[in-house]
This record gives sequence, structure tokens and C-alpha cells, in this order.
Amino acid sequence: MGRWQPDARARLQEAALALYGERGYDETTVAEIAERAGLTKRTFFRYFADKREVLFWGSELLEQQMVAAIEAAPAGASPLGMIGAALDAAAQRFEEVRDFTGPRHRIIASSRELQERELIKAASLSAAMAQALRARGVADNAATLTALTGTTLMHVAFEQWVDDPQRRPFALFAGDALAQLRDIAATG
Amino acid sequence: MGRWQPDARARLQEAALALYGERGYDETTVAEIAERAGLTKRTFFRYFADKREVLFWGSELLEQQMVAAIEAAPAGASPLGMIGAALDAAAQRFEEVRDFTGPRHRIIASSRELQERELIKAASLSAAMAQALRARGVADNAATLTALTGTTLMHVAFEQWVDDPQRRPFALFAGDALAQLRDIAATG
Repeated sequence: MGRWQPDARARLQEAALALYGERGYDETTVAEIAERAGLTKRTFFRYFADKREVLFWGSELLEQQMVAAIEAAPAGASPLGMIGAALDAAAQRFEEVRDFTGPRHRIIASSRELQERELIKAASLSAAMAQALRARGVADNAATLTALTGTTLMHVAFEQWVDDPQRRPFALFAGDALAQLRDIAATG
Repeated sequence: MGRWQPDARARLQEAALALYGERGYDETTVAEIAERAGLTKRTFFRYFADKREVLFWGSELLEQQMVAAIEAAPAGASPLGMIGAALDAAAQRFEEVRDFTGPRHRIIASSRELQERELIKAASLSAAMAQALRARGVADNAATLTALTGTTLMHVAFEQWVDDPQRRPFALFAGDALAQLRDIAATG
């Protein structure tokens, strides 16, 4: 199996999602995932460190894209304006992987180990955005607060988007969440 | 060692914190903690499920007190006003355990396993506050958003409070964080 495998990563992800959904995450082995994908365990480990990472592939790219959006925001953009740009970048990415996202979300909700990993990724995203905001001149504390608020908006929008039977765009829910936050902050 | 041990829990916590600080969390065993406290492993396990839980004892109580504050907030309080009441409850609790909190915070920062547990506890607190807000009539989404904003404010205030050389009160930092959030939301 030394040959080039077209779309090996996508096939492994698809096989893993299918098996996690059918048998449960804990009950599925790497060998079974590889077999379902028509590949070897060795190929699996060329793409993913373990069976958990299959579900989190892409999160680093997402983080990079959101950070890049903060870096590229127009001069004079407000802290929350820069977070808005990062959420736009996330929206674009989410729409591209929509069909993968719903099943993935349900599998993560089924396992505490996976929830922990998801929370660590969110904390990492928050820290990276805070650092990017600081590099754009936002004061230390305001940067932390704005970045955490950004992950909150993302989380709330995501929860609505992922199960939306009408498949409306993520950006719509993100905009709603931001408007709602402004209401809450103004009247609180 | 069937006898009653005065302050056994506090002695075990103190011993654990000291050893985690001296040797590192990973390198410390339950037997060593018990020995330092002048107690047995059996006594340790009467109070804590494992060496991780020594650091998280009290988080359920904190959650209960914050939820109770939301339940007891005056009729007509805004969502963020109810979160303010919950933060007041947290402030009171934090001041009581201040000397325990700084070393604990540094130990948690040193271990990914502990950070994961901390994130899970924060997620649990958020979910509990959101539920309490819903019970007070806050709409589903606004409740989630407000509760997550509450944990954000708590986190930002905590980070400043825990390392403050002047030992100013937690409530001061929580108030600052709330004011800053309002600024960010209004100008964003």
C-alpha cells in the first residue's frame, strides 16, 4: 500500500464518522476504520495521530483562517468588528464542510473525552484570537474579553446552525447572536 | 485509622497543594499526599475520588451558590443583572478560599489534564446558569448567550484577581469586566 491514495484522508474521515455513528466512538478501532476505507492502519496513522484526531482535523486551519481575518481587518476596526471578520471566515469554512459537521457534532456530544478535546480546541482558538487582537493594538484585558466573547458567539451560532432543518447560513446565526449580545449588554 | 479526623479534608488539600507545587502534579501520588497530611490512603479516598478531585472540591458548591443567586434575583432583573448576582455569590466564595486559589491556579496551568477538567467544570457551570436563566423566563438562546458571557466575565475577572499583588476584591474586577463588555458591545 505504498501507492498514492487519492482522497485517503477524506475516505478515512468518512469511514470513521460512519463507524462512530453506527457502533459508537469507544467501540470503534483504527483497524476497523482503515478496513472500511479500504486502506491500512499504517495509512491511517500517516494522516491522524489517533482516532480522536479524525474528528478534529481542520481545527488548526480554522484557527489560522480566523486569526488571518483579524490581521487583515481594516485599520480602525473595533475589537468586536475584528471578531466579526473572524466569524465571517469561520462561516465560509463551515459551509464547505456542512455535511461532515452534523454527524461529527452528535458524536462529540456522545463522549466526554471528545467534549474535553473540543473545549481545549475552543480555548486554543480563544487564546489565538486574543493574541491577534493584542497585535492589532487592543489592550490586554479587552483582547481576552473580546476573544472569549467571539468564541461564545461562535458557539451559540453553531448550535443553531448545525441542526437547522432549513439549512440557513452560519453567518445569519452569527449576526443574530451578535445583535442579541448587544441587547443583553445594553439592558443588563 | 477509623477515628474521626478533625479537618482531614483541609489537611489533605493543603498537603496535596504543597506536594503538587514542590514536585509537580504528575509526580505526586495519593500515598504521598496522605503521608504528608498524617493520614492514610483510605482516608484520602473517603474525601476524594482521585488526586485530581482534590483541586476541584468545592466547584459543585460554587455552582449551586451561583444558581441559587439567579433563582433569588429580584423579579424584573435583566438577564445580565441575574448574572451579576451570580458573580456576587462567586465573589463571596472566592474571598473565603483566596489563599488556596493562587497555588491551585498555577498547578492547573501546569497540566493539560487539569486544564481539561477545569474547562469541563466551566462548561457545566455555564449550562447550569443557562438553565436557571430559562427557569426565570429568559428565552432559550439568550439564556445560553448570557450564561456563557457570565463565565467569560468570571474568567477574565478571576485571572486579574488571582495574581493581584494588592489583593483587591474579586467583585471589583468582575465589575470592571462587565463595564468593559458593555463598552465593547456598544462600540463594536
